[in-house]
Amino acid sequence: MPVKEYKDLALEKHSQWKGKIEVVSRVSLNNRDELALAYTPGVAFPCLEIEKQPDLSYLYTRRGNLVAVVTDGSAVLGLGDIGPEAAMPVMEGKCALLKAFGDVDAIPICIRSKNVDEIVNTVRLIAGSFGGINLEDISAPRCFEVERRLKECCDIPVFHDDQHGTAIVVLAALINALKLKKRAITDIKAVINGAGAAGTAIGNLLKKSGLKELVICDKKGIVGGDGSLRDAMEGADVFIGVSAANCVSADLIRLMNKEPIVFAMANPVPEIMPDVALKAGAYIVGTGRSDFPNQINNVLAFPGIFRGALDARAADITDEMGLAAAYAIAEYIPKAQLRPDYIIPDALDKNVATAVAKAVAMAVDS
Amino acid sequence: MPVKEYKDLALEKHSQWKGKIEVVSRVSLNNRDELALAYTPGVAFPCLEIEKQPDLSYLYTRRGNLVAVVTDGSAVLGLGDIGPEAAMPVMEGKCALLKAFGDVDAIPICIRSKNVDEIVNTVRLIAGSFGGINLEDISAPRCFEVERRLKECCDIPVFHDDQHGTAIVVLAALINALKLKKRAITDIKAVINGAGAAGTAIGNLLKKSGLKELVICDKKGIVGGDGSLRDAMEGADVFIGVSAANCVSADLIRLMNKEPIVFAMANPVPEIMPDVALKAGAYIVGTGRSDFPNQINNVLAFPGIFRGALDARAADITDEMGLAAAYAIAEYIPKAQLRPDYIIPDALDKNVATAVAKAVAMAVDS
Repeated sequence: MPVKEYKDLALEKHSQWKGKIEVVSRVSLNNRDELALAYTPGVAFPCLEIEKQPDLSYLYTRRGNLVAVVTDGSAVLGLGDIGPEAAMPVMEGKCALLKAFGDVDAIPICIRSKNVDEIVNTVRLIAGSFGGINLEDISAPRCFEVERRLKECCDIPVFHDDQHGTAIVVLAALINALKLKKRAITDIKAVINGAGAAGTAIGNLLKKSGLKELVICDKKGIVGGDGSLRDAMEGADVFIGVSAANCVSADLIRLMNKEPIVFAMANPVPEIMPDVALKAGAYIVGTGRSDFPNQINNVLAFPGIFRGALDARAADITDEMGLAAAYAIAEYIPKAQLRPDYIIPDALDKNVATAVAKAVAMAVDS
Repeated sequence: MPVKEYKDLALEKHSQWKGKIEVVSRVSLNNRDELALAYTPGVAFPCLEIEKQPDLSYLYTRRGNLVAVVTDGSAVLGLGDIGPEAAMPVMEGKCALLKAFGDVDAIPICIRSKNVDEIVNTVRLIAGSFGGINLEDISAPRCFEVERRLKECCDIPVFHDDQHGTAIVVLAALINALKLKKRAITDIKAVINGAGAAGTAIGNLLKKSGLKELVICDKKGIVGGDGSLRDAMEGADVFIGVSAANCVSADLIRLMNKEPIVFAMANPVPEIMPDVALKAGAYIVGTGRSDFPNQINNVLAFPGIFRGALDARAADITDEMGLAAAYAIAEYIPKAQLRPDYIIPDALDKNVATAVAKAVAMAVDS
């Protein structure tokens, strides 16, 4: 469909939907007895129980299933800093996905400030109404400080999906790619192109998983060292792009070790098109797109992660829970079914979230 | 039912409900096309439209139907300062009522601070996600400053229901009571007992409606003057209690003018029981209770007020809108049907909100 027509369709649908989420009542309020139980005077009893023991808010209210999807609208999709109101359709989409894939209730909180103190204070002060916080589309480097400080001061799980959701799904894909390659993560060299929120988190999680040789590049070349992306690619086994369209040529792929793994996740146009990468010798190619094989999509991770964290009443989402999620996604595909063009489950397979939730909940105490 | 049994029932019901509200998806997300329209890449188009014109968030997102029910948990029902988590069951009840009676989506935001600056800043910074703010159960006098400052800095309607919702329903009841008495509000003397959020707002709205002779009392007696409640009651035509159980004796009613109007709204035990007041000469008695005639209940006002304000895209909820709501509630009962024990519509009659919404929306531009 031509872009103009697709735009018209998307706008028409959004105006028809009148919002992609809705708040509904779970109680019937049709007679005096029902009203008296759900509101006054009946409601006073759970209030007083929670006053004595605040944790009972998880029993007597929706809190334990409710996540705030928080943004300042500063790094929305590839659109950049479009502001909190304009970020709302994306946040509603995220909330709809959390419900559809994780049975998690979620509501957008779009904050009218890009000041870290103001964002942290706002979220800290409303955290008692929620069971978890999903940070979304907050630009780097502020997102790192916002997340770190919120994890310190909040007693509920805080998760920045652009960082950790992406890292978890990349690791899942890499685990399965390495099974096909019969290689251990400890013995490979990987290059990440893009040193923003996603690139940084991917690097950290891969190192947690045993990766020893890692080079991170940004637009200027190797981060914290001399050399270009070209230098970094020489002798690498894995390329992970969270950068920009068409920034990797076939020549660069040919500099890598034999039959490399290429995850080119720039959206909508990847760092290198899959056919070009495969022709240049790549063994496995993944992208962020649904119209190519091996779609590396966060929706495989975040609904199950929140479902598991809420089910286990986790106080935080730890690296261990992230690793458990990555392995659950990878292991969702039986080893015998793995192929170079099938290393990651279908993003629309809603059973993945169930497997992830189970693994994440089990990792809470470990 | 004995209190112990009723408590057990209320706790059991609340734990079974697992929250009285729920967030659901309004879109289907079962195939690639649906996902592409509701999320990436389709969602980028409404985002970019809203960036150009932030008001379009009312067209392309749920914002225009979504109200935040905001509290600090400092004055919850008659329970006092029980804290934000413990206030949650009441706020969820309020949200459920907004949906059931006004088709308004609402979500509790319980703030972990009683500092006015922190409350105002938090609400101000999240206001872009909502179409309206309902302040709830914030103790006086802080509630006055919170409301005043939020009305100044927010571009969406801000309404403190404990103040204005109560005042509107009291005015509605008084309008009809005076029809039966064939008296004009300009010619009567009224006494309000209770100088907190509700009492203050009732006084202001009655004065807006033409009341000239008004005495407000608190525990210490006449506010801003000498004299006791007893002194105030002498020669009064109307008593409005938003104070404490059993604080008005039959003797005090006998000091009032002949056949007075008595609204004894302390909950659950009124200032004077209806049978005692009637025996002492009262012509019309209203209370906050559903088991006596003339229940003066905010649910007659707030769902329709928010429905009307949202429908009209009002930037504020003004006194004029409040007055329109009061007259709509009063006029909902045809004059010929008014009786001393039927001056106010049934709190469970969901058509009242429709009438209120229409009147409020029409008053937006006036």
